Amino acid sequence: MRGVIVPLVTPFNEDYSIDVPALEEHIEFLQTVGVHGIFINATTGEFTSLSVEERKFLAEKGRELVNASFYLVGTASSNTSEVVELTKHAQDIGADYAVIAPPYYCPLNDEALFRHYSMVAERTDIPIILYNIPSCANALSVSLIKRLTLEYSNIAGVKETIDSINHIRDVILDVKGERNDFRVFTGLDQHFLNTLALGGDGGIMACANFAPEVHLALWKAFQEKRFEDAFEYARRLAKLSRVYDLASSFGSAIKLAMSLRGFSIRPVLRPPYLMDGENVKEGIRKLLAEVLG
Amino acid sequence: MRGVIVPLVTPFNEDYSIDVPALEEHIEFLQTVGVHGIFINATTGEFTSLSVEERKFLAEKGRELVNASFYLVGTASSNTSEVVELTKHAQDIGADYAVIAPPYYCPLNDEALFRHYSMVAERTDIPIILYNIPSCANALSVSLIKRLTLEYSNIAGVKETIDSINHIRDVILDVKGERNDFRVFTGLDQHFLNTLALGGDGGIMACANFAPEVHLALWKAFQEKRFEDAFEYARRLAKLSRVYDLASSFGSAIKLAMSLRGFSIRPVLRPPYLMDGENVKEGIRKLLAEVLG
Amino acid sequence: MRGVIVPLVTPFNEDYSIDVPALEEHIEFLQTVGVHGIFINATTGEFTSLSVEERKFLAEKGRELVNASFYLVGTASSNTSEVVELTKHAQDIGADYAVIAPPYYCPLNDEALFRHYSMVAERTDIPIILYNIPSCANALSVSLIKRLTLEYSNIAGVKETIDSINHIRDVILDVKGERNDFRVFTGLDQHFLNTLALGGDGGIMACANFAPEVHLALWKAFQEKRFEDAFEYARRLAKLSRVYDLASSFGSAIKLAMSLRGFSIRPVLRPPYLMDGENVKEGIRKLLAEVLG
Amino acid sequence: MRGVIVPLVTPFNEDYSIDVPALEEHIEFLQTVGVHGIFINATTGEFTSLSVEERKFLAEKGRELVNASFYLVGTASSNTSEVVELTKHAQDIGADYAVIAPPYYCPLNDEALFRHYSMVAERTDIPIILYNIPSCANALSVSLIKRLTLEYSNIAGVKETIDSINHIRDVILDVKGERNDFRVFTGLDQHFLNTLALGGDGGIMACANFAPEVHLALWKAFQEKRFEDAFEYARRLAKLSRVYDLASSFGSAIKLAMSLRGFSIRPVLRPPYLMDGENVKEGIRKLLAEVLG
Repeated sequence: MRGVIVPLVTPFNEDYSIDVPALEEHIEFLQTVGVHGIFINATTGEFTSLSVEERKFLAEKGRELVNASFYLVGTASSNTSEVVELTKHAQDIGADYAVIAPPYYCPLNDEALFRHYSMVAERTDIPIILYNIPSCANALSVSLIKRLTLEYSNIAGVKETIDSINHIRDVILDVKGERNDFRVFTGLDQHFLNTLALGGDGGIMACANFAPEVHLALWKAFQEKRFEDAFEYARRLAKLSRVYDLASSFGSAIKLAMSLRGFSIRPVLRPPYLMDGENVKEGIRKLLAEVLG
Repeated sequence: MRGVIVPLVTPFNEDYSIDVPALEEHIEFLQTVGVHGIFINATTGEFTSLSVEERKFLAEKGRELVNASFYLVGTASSNTSEVVELTKHAQDIGADYAVIAPPYYCPLNDEALFRHYSMVAERTDIPIILYNIPSCANALSVSLIKRLTLEYSNIAGVKETIDSINHIRDVILDVKGERNDFRVFTGLDQHFLNTLALGGDGGIMACANFAPEVHLALWKAFQEKRFEDAFEYARRLAKLSRVYDLASSFGSAIKLAMSLRGFSIRPVLRPPYLMDGENVKEGIRKLLAEVLG
Repeated sequence: MRGVIVPLVTPFNEDYSIDVPALEEHIEFLQTVGVHGIFINATTGEFTSLSVEERKFLAEKGRELVNASFYLVGTASSNTSEVVELTKHAQDIGADYAVIAPPYYCPLNDEALFRHYSMVAERTDIPIILYNIPSCANALSVSLIKRLTLEYSNIAGVKETIDSINHIRDVILDVKGERNDFRVFTGLDQHFLNTLALGGDGGIMACANFAPEVHLALWKAFQEKRFEDAFEYARRLAKLSRVYDLASSFGSAIKLAMSLRGFSIRPVLRPPYLMDGENVKEGIRKLLAEVLG
Repeated sequence: MRGVIVPLVTPFNEDYSIDVPALEEHIEFLQTVGVHGIFINATTGEFTSLSVEERKFLAEKGRELVNASFYLVGTASSNTSEVVELTKHAQDIGADYAVIAPPYYCPLNDEALFRHYSMVAERTDIPIILYNIPSCANALSVSLIKRLTLEYSNIAGVKETIDSINHIRDVILDVKGERNDFRVFTGLDQHFLNTLALGGDGGIMACANFAPEVHLALWKAFQEKRFEDAFEYARRLAKLSRVYDLASSFGSAIKLAMSLRGFSIRPVLRPPYLMDGENVKEGIRKLLAEVLG
């Protein structure tokens, strides 16, 4: 799997129940435009506000709907045994990858983090994508990623949601340099081109929920060595990524942007996330008009 | 409720199942020595490694066993509706307080945190203790604590697990100064005397799992204005609190110390926490010998 | 040297020249009330806005004026050879102690910091007080302080401007525990009693510029074991220390408070520090009225 | 000024005196290869270990030697009046730009930082390059840079030594977007291509002390739209930039790399910086062999 992968929002109704039709519409749209992967139960999908049952339900529903793209399921939890349970479930329903952020309450040292991932990797066969997001969860150091990768062949890649060229550089040189089939994805739209340029494999980027045409155009231009075009799309993604700074959470930013672009998704977030108000929406409207026309 | 409150460890068997007899032994011991409160499903109790069902089971089991002390149940989660569910359960089984750490994955602003606690406070009647532990979860600012406290009379106090005299000073002056019945507890043994001296109400301190006699002696000396003794006990707690720096987690530190003091608890932590080895145990043995004789 | 030490502000005229009469007035006042030490070229004294020549001038002027108290001179710089030069000067003019904060531009590892202090300690005889202020300069770890202290007998103590009971605990246990004549001072008024209670030697506290009677009363009460009084004074210092949070810098806070208490010092800071305006002054006026009457 | 600018190391003799012949050799080399700018008294040049007199001496010496490239002089200090003095000096000797990092001891708010730069900008005419290096000095926010830039036309650009695409994106969109002649330079070799791609103007990069041919080749390829080549050089710079992680300071990294590449510069740093030993040198040797052949 390489290219443009979309970490889905989870659509909710006003009463906070899951809005399945909106999910269906969204997945159908993404497959039609041709994204390379679709990732359910993501951070942007507010996975921490879903029960274990709801996460399994969504994983299964997504499996039904996704057929043209790779299918990824988020299985992180601060509870290791819950991660094992969810990852086994993802495997059983036929997902292509499980994406696993580290535990996210008390600080853990590298040894504990290694053990956590080991327990999952040893109890499952599904390819695992490590998910480094230090602003939310325990950080994964390059040396830990390397150690896990060399030990477990079913650890297949990493999603790096970190605004640091140094870090992505080191993951590519130190880990991918040792195991060429290891996949490195950025989690940030504004790092997409730089990640590809350094030898990475793609991005798992939330703005692709509402503007996947830009990401796909960049990907295509890069593959076809039309680099001037690639730079132009990268500049658009840089601008577009400012949507995150306008809103108070990933979910709020993306759901508002989707509404503005005509998706039927409701502007509803489960608590503790808070949907931003008109001012933020207006800012996003202006940004989209400027970048997407 | 004022005084010495104990955040329980959760005893496990080698197969990670809950070791109920060890829990019974522990609670009986603590009530016999006369601690003022007993807090189940705490950070030290590895609550993030327990399922919702196990948390309810432990809350109920504790309710059966605790009768001489106040009874507190931890009901934190990153999922607001799970917090409501667990807090209602704590209320239904007759707990005295629910203790609630903030959500602990992505950063939330004060407005989102306010809304999170509001939703719980409006749906329950049980007195709530806010639990500020910025090394693990979103931080609670003094202004947010004040706003919540003035808005909801069932928000009854705060546990402050933060190594800052400035912060405890501000909570006492700015919040307790406005609502005198609001209770301020430190979550750190080494801050116990200073918190009392500044006008706080006690501590919820993990070393009281294995050496509650020191905390109780400090409390008694302070109440009886035998301050020279209070200082002596404070120095002992300062030394004792170094147990946290010797180990890789609260749970590891406390379970090893309990083993060394003769409790029947097993040195077993659920993953992702890792039990430290012989070197750490030896360090703790020396520390206990030095401080407790 | 033990007790209450005052890190002087540097009085300036409107044209930013040094206001020597105001300095004389201030030092005379402090000696009259009986503080144990007077510290010139401190952080509160805006030492980074003074030229080397001005620092020497102030050191000499202070030496003339201070006779009843211990006399300390700040000799920090990011330039090691300048530190040597200033420390030799302090020694030559007969200061009692040189107080030395670490270099404060690029991060230095413990080895570089050790070498920096070694070069000074080996080239001078004057007793040196290390000055740990991690919010402004490279941090001094407990192990580094210990290593320096055991290696150089002329390293005589440490000033700890850090809001952490853990850190002060560790310095006292690990360093003073190994070399009993080593002096541990807090740099924070609100940590004064706690530092004494843990076995420290005093404080170098900026609020003593304008309210030394509170610090001295606490010190005296503690020495005479009138601990209830000591707690009362500690609560006053806790309140008083909020002056730092009202203002944008140490210097602004202290100079405004001194003006309000009738000293002839002008409300002038050298740039880059900015004197706060009427709102801040009014807040400080209320605070002083509440605490000092 | 656009393109490749080199922040010079300061060569020292074994006795820490300035090694003028090595400086002459170095500047001649850089002009021969054709770098676009040469920057003396930089962070890499250990400016904090130089006296004011030495900084003026070096500024003058550099002015004599640099004729084919733009000439930049670093004039930062924590003392505003010293910055004014050094900036006037740079102007008087005919430097093209003064480069000014923010004050670097106690934290300053945006108002104080604005006032600091205002005082310099109002008292001098030489074009000023702001220098943002938050790991060493107070951080410059994008809004502060914008405010300064719109207020003072002699503030001509910014050097951004920060590993964040978000930050460089915002400076380019929010500041350069408002004042097109404002120049944005990265301070990090590994950000060079990305900065150009987003619309920036070049880089002030320390690896160009010893391998300017790579930076110049990247610059040329980018200008000539040979982007495949540009990516290749960017990957080399990414690898080369790991030299900073091998050593304990910029100066140590660059001086060792220069020695290894045959420059006559001695491996001498002024304290408090520490020259790294053989292990580090060996690591750098391997890195250079791998990247530069």
